Amino acid sequence: MKANPGKKSWYIPDAYLPSSGLGEKWEGHESVCVLNVGEQDAILTFILYFEDREPITIRDLRLAARSNRHIGMHKPEQLCGVEVPRDVPYGIAVESDQPIIVQYSRLDVTQPNFSLMTTTPYSE
Amino acid sequence: MKANPGKKSWYIPDAYLPSSGLGEKWEGHESVCVLNVGEQDAILTFILYFEDREPITIRDLRLAARSNRHIGMHKPEQLCGVEVPRDVPYGIAVESDQPIIVQYSRLDVTQPNFSLMTTTPYSE
Amino acid sequence: MKANPGKKSWYIPDAYLPSSGLGEKWEGHESVCVLNVGEQDAILTFILYFEDREPITIRDLRLAARSNRHIGMHKPEQLCGVEVPRDVPYGIAVESDQPIIVQYSRLDVTQPNFSLMTTTPYSE
Amino acid sequence: MKANPGKKSWYIPDAYLPSSGLGEKWEGHESVCVLNVGEQDAILTFILYFEDREPITIRDLRLAARSNRHIGMHKPEQLCGVEVPRDVPYGIAVESDQPIIVQYSRLDVTQPNFSLMTTTPYSE
Repeated sequence: MKANPGKKSWYIPDAYLPSSGLGEKWEGHESVCVLNVGEQDAILTFILYFEDREPITIRDLRLAARSNRHIGMHKPEQLCGVEVPRDVPYGIAVESDQPIIVQYSRLDVTQPNFSLMTTTPYSE
Repeated sequence: MKANPGKKSWYIPDAYLPSSGLGEKWEGHESVCVLNVGEQDAILTFILYFEDREPITIRDLRLAARSNRHIGMHKPEQLCGVEVPRDVPYGIAVESDQPIIVQYSRLDVTQPNFSLMTTTPYSE
Repeated sequence: MKANPGKKSWYIPDAYLPSSGLGEKWEGHESVCVLNVGEQDAILTFILYFEDREPITIRDLRLAARSNRHIGMHKPEQLCGVEVPRDVPYGIAVESDQPIIVQYSRLDVTQPNFSLMTTTPYSE
Repeated sequence: MKANPGKKSWYIPDAYLPSSGLGEKWEGHESVCVLNVGEQDAILTFILYFEDREPITIRDLRLAARSNRHIGMHKPEQLCGVEVPRDVPYGIAVESDQPIIVQYSRLDVTQPNFSLMTTTPYSE
């Protein structure tokens, strides 16, 4: 088993948080899912990039050693209080001080059915 | 944080723009989502490949430094006026003069429900 | 622009061709989408792997230079006459004599709605 | 054709097994799809990582030479009897003693429609 697998930089060009689909039983959402297989806690920074506004930086997100988190981009309490703007296309860079693995997923409930998508982002 | 992450060449073999799903509240579409984390503006070229016709080249698409765009393949105004043919399977090569990151997504509304898919394309 | 991008070997562990969803307006299907950006025609071999039967090899699939094809796993006429078994989990190895790029997608219509999924397979 | 393609370590940060969607014609589920193109049988270990509990290790999963399996995370009989907790976000590390290829997919039927997602996980 590898001691410290993963990468420190991950990039997600297709992020989007719809304002529709709120108030239902299941809220539409995006998750940045992060896995730390190593023995060191990791400190993460998210940088949000937009077409026509300045980037937003969210610092000091914690990912314990040997743990996994699904961080919801619609939950300010998981993002140091930052509210991600709704209905605005954006992209996310994830920087970590330890090697981690990232997967990005979206659940859309704009219409009554569920629609899921997921990808393993580009990393360096 | 990396100064200039990404690759200059990305390849999407499964592109498809349906003619159905138009005229509804939400139009079915494909997006080539592009992220430029670097400090230099990027100039992009899209080359569309087909089974039995010549490739189509779309030049001079702009992606500002430190920005993110979701380029809609159904929007000629975002593609230097090029109209992508409907209902024809094709593939896309994205070439950039600066390293960028690409993600490809499709929203299908051929039937009343939403269906989403996304992937991080192959890059070199 | 790169002269000959891609890889010669691609691997898709999650392939599945449902028998349901037939006879409707839209047939559920899987596509192995292949892109040849180079100047040489490519010859492809598909090898199908199963849990408890021998692999099936499909030889001599053609992909012209500078072209793109969406090869339907439900269409024997695109697979040298091979009928892929329905309702059986399998995996696909794609071998090419030229570098190519592959993307795998599935459209499921087991229930009346559409559901799409796609991924960029592992390559070597 | 490559003799022994793949990697020995694969990482899936977005795993989730819903308790809803049970008892219907089609059960919602996750599959870890594994492909062994080589001539040696492979022995796999799954390690499940959580946000706030200890990892769970599932040892001694078998993948025969030149075969493919779709391992269902909702089927204890395929996981040496381990019952994966429902409704809990988690991540999966797959370790193999031989190079293999992995793809992760989920079928969600929380609502009556199907929703599929898939990705090729990060590997080392």
